[in-house]
Amino acid sequence: MPLPQASELTVSTLGPCRVPSPLQERGQQFVDETSRVLVSADTRDLQPFLQTGELPPAFEPAGPRPSLFFDPATLTCGIVTCGGICPGLNGVIRSVVLTLTHSYGVQRILGFRYGYAGLAEKSGYAPLLLTPEVVDTIHQQGGTLLASSRGPQELGDMIATLQRSNVGILFTIGGDGTLRGASALSREIRRQNLPISIIGIPKTIDNDLAWVQRSFGFSTAVEEATKSLVAAHTEARGAWNGIGLVKLMGRHSGFIAAHATLANPDVNFCLVPEVPFTLEGEGGFLQVLERRLANRQHAVIVVAEGAGQEILQDAANQQRDASGNLRLQDVGVFLRDRITRHFAAQRIETTVKYIDPSYIIRSLPANAFDSEFCLVLGQQAVHAGMAGRTDMVVGFWNQNFTHMPIALAVGQRKLLDPQGLAWQSVLQATGQPASLVGAH
Amino acid sequence: MPLPQASELTVSTLGPCRVPSPLQERGQQFVDETSRVLVSADTRDLQPFLQTGELPPAFEPAGPRPSLFFDPATLTCGIVTCGGICPGLNGVIRSVVLTLTHSYGVQRILGFRYGYAGLAEKSGYAPLLLTPEVVDTIHQQGGTLLASSRGPQELGDMIATLQRSNVGILFTIGGDGTLRGASALSREIRRQNLPISIIGIPKTIDNDLAWVQRSFGFSTAVEEATKSLVAAHTEARGAWNGIGLVKLMGRHSGFIAAHATLANPDVNFCLVPEVPFTLEGEGGFLQVLERRLANRQHAVIVVAEGAGQEILQDAANQQRDASGNLRLQDVGVFLRDRITRHFAAQRIETTVKYIDPSYIIRSLPANAFDSEFCLVLGQQAVHAGMAGRTDMVVGFWNQNFTHMPIALAVGQRKLLDPQGLAWQSVLQATGQPASLVGAH
Amino acid sequence: MPLPQASELTVSTLGPCRVPSPLQERGQQFVDETSRVLVSADTRDLQPFLQTGELPPAFEPAGPRPSLFFDPATLTCGIVTCGGICPGLNGVIRSVVLTLTHSYGVQRILGFRYGYAGLAEKSGYAPLLLTPEVVDTIHQQGGTLLASSRGPQELGDMIATLQRSNVGILFTIGGDGTLRGASALSREIRRQNLPISIIGIPKTIDNDLAWVQRSFGFSTAVEEATKSLVAAHTEARGAWNGIGLVKLMGRHSGFIAAHATLANPDVNFCLVPEVPFTLEGEGGFLQVLERRLANRQHAVIVVAEGAGQEILQDAANQQRDASGNLRLQDVGVFLRDRITRHFAAQRIETTVKYIDPSYIIRSLPANAFDSEFCLVLGQQAVHAGMAGRTDMVVGFWNQNFTHMPIALAVGQRKLLDPQGLAWQSVLQATGQPASLVGAH
Amino acid sequence: MPLPQASELTVSTLGPCRVPSPLQERGQQFVDETSRVLVSADTRDLQPFLQTGELPPAFEPAGPRPSLFFDPATLTCGIVTCGGICPGLNGVIRSVVLTLTHSYGVQRILGFRYGYAGLAEKSGYAPLLLTPEVVDTIHQQGGTLLASSRGPQELGDMIATLQRSNVGILFTIGGDGTLRGASALSREIRRQNLPISIIGIPKTIDNDLAWVQRSFGFSTAVEEATKSLVAAHTEARGAWNGIGLVKLMGRHSGFIAAHATLANPDVNFCLVPEVPFTLEGEGGFLQVLERRLANRQHAVIVVAEGAGQEILQDAANQQRDASGNLRLQDVGVFLRDRITRHFAAQRIETTVKYIDPSYIIRSLPANAFDSEFCLVLGQQAVHAGMAGRTDMVVGFWNQNFTHMPIALAVGQRKLLDPQGLAWQSVLQATGQPASLVGAH
Repeated sequence: MPLPQASELTVSTLGPCRVPSPLQERGQQFVDETSRVLVSADTRDLQPFLQTGELPPAFEPAGPRPSLFFDPATLTCGIVTCGGICPGLNGVIRSVVLTLTHSYGVQRILGFRYGYAGLAEKSGYAPLLLTPEVVDTIHQQGGTLLASSRGPQELGDMIATLQRSNVGILFTIGGDGTLRGASALSREIRRQNLPISIIGIPKTIDNDLAWVQRSFGFSTAVEEATKSLVAAHTEARGAWNGIGLVKLMGRHSGFIAAHATLANPDVNFCLVPEVPFTLEGEGGFLQVLERRLANRQHAVIVVAEGAGQEILQDAANQQRDASGNLRLQDVGVFLRDRITRHFAAQRIETTVKYIDPSYIIRSLPANAFDSEFCLVLGQQAVHAGMAGRTDMVVGFWNQNFTHMPIALAVGQRKLLDPQGLAWQSVLQATGQPASLVGAH
Repeated sequence: MPLPQASELTVSTLGPCRVPSPLQERGQQFVDETSRVLVSADTRDLQPFLQTGELPPAFEPAGPRPSLFFDPATLTCGIVTCGGICPGLNGVIRSVVLTLTHSYGVQRILGFRYGYAGLAEKSGYAPLLLTPEVVDTIHQQGGTLLASSRGPQELGDMIATLQRSNVGILFTIGGDGTLRGASALSREIRRQNLPISIIGIPKTIDNDLAWVQRSFGFSTAVEEATKSLVAAHTEARGAWNGIGLVKLMGRHSGFIAAHATLANPDVNFCLVPEVPFTLEGEGGFLQVLERRLANRQHAVIVVAEGAGQEILQDAANQQRDASGNLRLQDVGVFLRDRITRHFAAQRIETTVKYIDPSYIIRSLPANAFDSEFCLVLGQQAVHAGMAGRTDMVVGFWNQNFTHMPIALAVGQRKLLDPQGLAWQSVLQATGQPASLVGAH
Repeated sequence: MPLPQASELTVSTLGPCRVPSPLQERGQQFVDETSRVLVSADTRDLQPFLQTGELPPAFEPAGPRPSLFFDPATLTCGIVTCGGICPGLNGVIRSVVLTLTHSYGVQRILGFRYGYAGLAEKSGYAPLLLTPEVVDTIHQQGGTLLASSRGPQELGDMIATLQRSNVGILFTIGGDGTLRGASALSREIRRQNLPISIIGIPKTIDNDLAWVQRSFGFSTAVEEATKSLVAAHTEARGAWNGIGLVKLMGRHSGFIAAHATLANPDVNFCLVPEVPFTLEGEGGFLQVLERRLANRQHAVIVVAEGAGQEILQDAANQQRDASGNLRLQDVGVFLRDRITRHFAAQRIETTVKYIDPSYIIRSLPANAFDSEFCLVLGQQAVHAGMAGRTDMVVGFWNQNFTHMPIALAVGQRKLLDPQGLAWQSVLQATGQPASLVGAH
Repeated sequence: MPLPQASELTVSTLGPCRVPSPLQERGQQFVDETSRVLVSADTRDLQPFLQTGELPPAFEPAGPRPSLFFDPATLTCGIVTCGGICPGLNGVIRSVVLTLTHSYGVQRILGFRYGYAGLAEKSGYAPLLLTPEVVDTIHQQGGTLLASSRGPQELGDMIATLQRSNVGILFTIGGDGTLRGASALSREIRRQNLPISIIGIPKTIDNDLAWVQRSFGFSTAVEEATKSLVAAHTEARGAWNGIGLVKLMGRHSGFIAAHATLANPDVNFCLVPEVPFTLEGEGGFLQVLERRLANRQHAVIVVAEGAGQEILQDAANQQRDASGNLRLQDVGVFLRDRITRHFAAQRIETTVKYIDPSYIIRSLPANAFDSEFCLVLGQQAVHAGMAGRTDMVVGFWNQNFTHMPIALAVGQRKLLDPQGLAWQSVLQATGQPASLVGAH
């Protein structure tokens, strides 16, 4: 991805910070506002700037500020979780509530239920009052205490709810559709000149947000996904020409599939959205699979949810779901049937076992790695909101938590680079050809 | 089930035992042949016998005998695994190999590959030579080192292979179809008066073998199944009127579904083959589910693979698979679609998440409980074979390992008793009505 | 163990049952009072009775009765947990509370805190009011919601508390010291002719209660213990003459050590209280260990907490702890030091890694197997108490839940039989000599 | 830490690379030699360089090079693992072997056994021949296939072994003592002008290597450590004034303790080497603990292995172990006894449960996160060696794998910054005072 312009990196604020932070009294270290986190640590990107002396593009660092925009004593905050569930959601909710309460002394925190629907008056979902007691042990459970839903709501209705509830900061935890909604909400709020901050906490189990090194839940997902790969391998070896086929999450990016493959050496084929393949033809997937079976009598295939879209023929089935995402065909079921038919037609005995662990994975509580990440992520989101930042997400980049405008985060998707280290390592680990596009 | 007759409990033998067991030299305790394990520990079943003084029906106990039918020095043994994979298969294989080798000094053990197909000359699968080194760590892996297949092979072909390989004892690890095949094989062998023993080791992850208290893999299956129940509960609570639906194994018996339900208190409906239900009607499943959603806004449903067959309409799809088992429709997918349509028709918003963890479960290595059980089960199978028993399985009943004729084991299936303790506890734990048969 | 006399099997009752059970209205199956569960399923034990026609010793079966001693509408119940924590405690508490509430409609349940101390007025620990909401998810946590303590309290003080709190049934969950206390309490209560039932729920992670096939937490303990055995094996193989030494629970009985050994094939020596050994001498432990190292350069040793007491020299350190149990020396630390010194003296390089996972094990939540067991155990305890049984424990024997007088349960300890199946299997699995008593 | 000088970042090479890499034929992407990875992504560190136009300090990136120093066809490689075991060791060994074999076609790889001792002729440990078959599944096991030992060996003896075995590249996997030894070996080799490369792969479960963001095994260690924290919390809550005390690894740095604390919200006190504390005095640890117990009746304490050294009074016990590391007293046992005595003296009833999970943790196989990391780390080490780099380690920094001179890696230790984000988050999460140094 080309480096963003400095202008794209500037985070919006609601206004000057005039309230002294209560953290001042506890000897807290505050962020040095002259510090920035370089977008690129590659010296090749640095060269032009060394010549001009201009500062290269860099992120505002996250962290506590000595002065606040909001007065904690009178502030009400809101939290909402949108889209599919993801390991760590409750950890983020818990961290936001505990940090608001214990670090800043905020007294009133509302948990809006069932996603943006909980912000629409017409839905009639009353918010939960969130206290440290309510969130004390929720991180031990998967899912979200607040429940969720997909899709946007009418901006005016949501703003009316925020005003009626006296909300100063709304923390929205969700994926790119949700964040686009948050950005639209924030822009309308600023147009109306309202003192309401919208802080996004990016939730993408696929880890596909631009300029964000890792998103919560991804590590847990990869860890659990490897168990299905082991299962597929065991099933595959248990039968003559056994084929274990696992579909993993990854609508547009194959990070879960690729990293699970790297963590498990039993995978023979990893199919991701970023690397096209064909079923037919010399060197196409089916022919290579056939060769693998002839040599080894079993095979393990991992396919990301969004892989092979170009070969799913019934384009008419492509619809957009409630969030406006492209409704993709189920490539796993498609491949299972297609492989079965292929070998049946050739009178080659095979046994295909298909595993789709998606709901088992995404409903897990966070593993230790994600738990810690959720804790610190929630803390940073609170610090950002208290300092009057808005229309931004908290990111993580080059070993630092960062502030990033929502527009930059959702402007393009992070994709696996077929020339990059991870995919090259996948090719080495699987032994699959660099291209599975067949010649005709 | 009515108690078996004494005649049904008599185990076949190949002939007198004249070879002293090498275990005699190691101070081994041997089975007291006057001992038997009562089939029923209920005094009501005992009363008639107390009046006549006749011995009530009882199993021959498993265990080492001081004299053997086979001479270990010249004996070759074979092992074969048939049907679907199951946690613990490798543990049983390993135990049989180690016991034959270390306890008896058997020198040659053949692992026939890909189920009964490995015993058919036409398949051309060469057997593996099994040694302690080969099986040393296989119990750490799920599946079966020998791979498997479904379906029978021609008896003459199999006997020819056994004779050509000079096999004296064949250990067949498999389910009821496999055991029926083993029994037919054993009868033909005895008809031909050949000195070959067929020892069955019952493999049924569903735990549905008559007069067998527990089968290996069942405990592991229940343990892993509970994880999917947690996932379903998390998904269900994450959305308005969320429904988590989990299909578990249990073609004819609902033991896995019932016991997983007892181990996890989040289940609201447990549907098993033994308890009929209807979808429609007053008090039928859909109406009760609707009431549950109205009260609690989420529901968790567990359905055993073989439940609700009477309501699967397209009977034409019922086919028999390669092992001759009834090919049942996938009740999980059926219910998912049916529930979704029902609520859509009523314009009630729901979100149904369907989880089918079957392959993940059955491919696991055995848990500690099953590991130990597999170890001891394999030891008993070897003791039985060395003593010339044949056409039998090793069972476990009233705290003892037992010998049981195959005919008795496969004569009828063990089923959940709707009036029994386990199902009554399920009703208490779920709160579901005793009957989900709707009135019309 | 010799079979108990019929008189030892008779369970005490507070008086006639005149209150119809509310379960009658729900079509509940009740226990057939003519049914009993045979103590022995071995036909050798049956022979004398077949001659006389007399009924052999048998347990009263557990389960719901159609008539009750207590009126649920006015009944208050109490629960107390004593001694060390054990996986499943919260599951039992939860099951007792839910069964009392949902099956019988009992309105007031008190959780006495910190063991018997919570029943002593002088301690000043107020009881918790237990409701279905309070116990809803406690089974997901290890330990006990009620906390615990060791040691008895003054009987009069406890009875006064029960009377002041109006408690009709007290469920005491604890080990043999606790149960002896419960029995004494029950006898004093009956001497005073008070309508208070004492129902014991046996808690012994060591699984050493007489005539009880399994106790809750044992399966979880064995499962977790095997992880330490794997660790010990890994450490042992990681160094020249590496020795992995694991101490497991088992003060008087080696069941955890033996069954963990059977579930894990890496153990070379299993030392239990029931099988004496010596360190020194020809054929003593140290010499055999030395030979093992010479042959294989590593060794894994499992020692039960109570093994080798006869060789712990400093008898002066033997004290009784607060519960009156014999205070044993820490055999694990002793062995670690003794082995290290032995090989140092011989100038043989070794590395000893000592692992004591006891607190990690006993603080776990119950695994699926124990979870289900705790659920049903708690139900049976409630049924027994409602029917006016007292001075008894709920047991499990020959596939049935049973009632058993406390005196019988604590009269003798269940021990590993060195001639029995389990220990013989341990010897085969480890390859250790049947005797490690050295000759001098 | 102050930024290193450019000279400290220069990696040594054995000579020019004249052998074309076999990866050229497979369309491999090679490293751009003009690229460097900035040491600091903080713009404050960049400012001086923007003014001068000079390149800031930066690491050489890891990765495959188009030309090699060694000819794979004739190359022999060696691998050795030193020091304590750590999750992922086998994964690194496996990755090195597979990459050498499959990517470069190296034919002969020797695994030296038992650490540097395996390189000393006098030890007499013959090396293992490592092939893809030998290492195929070793990553599923904890520990190291090659076994290990501590301490250095004589340089001349080791060089003689390398020459006799014809080793071109030696991969040494170990901690800072090991790496110092590797550097000395490399310097002596270059002094003798021998064509032998020494590539270090840093192994530190404590994650305390300077300028290395993460080391393998650390993530697994933190994940497993949290289980002991849960156990400690459960034990603590199970008794009146229960105290759960867990000792975790961290000889000089408290990263495991701090990150496990962040991943688990039950910890009340986290004690690390970087933050001094006293037991006595107003505001000292014991007084604050006493206050905690008075308020909440239980406490969870995590102590890193190297914490509180200044208060361990018996300095005489300080010795250096075989690797020359400072032999620290066992702070866990010390604290357990000290806390027990303190409260006994005050006649405050407490129960202290002490858990030391170190061997259980370090013997685990790598989790998914570490597995993947080990795979890629091993690949990078091979690329570096093939290109003639020497006296270096493979690092990971600012999202890139890097080359770093051993001298820089071992020049100083990475420590927790008491003013940094992680420790500040620990203070917030535990609620412990910033200082536990008591006033007198």
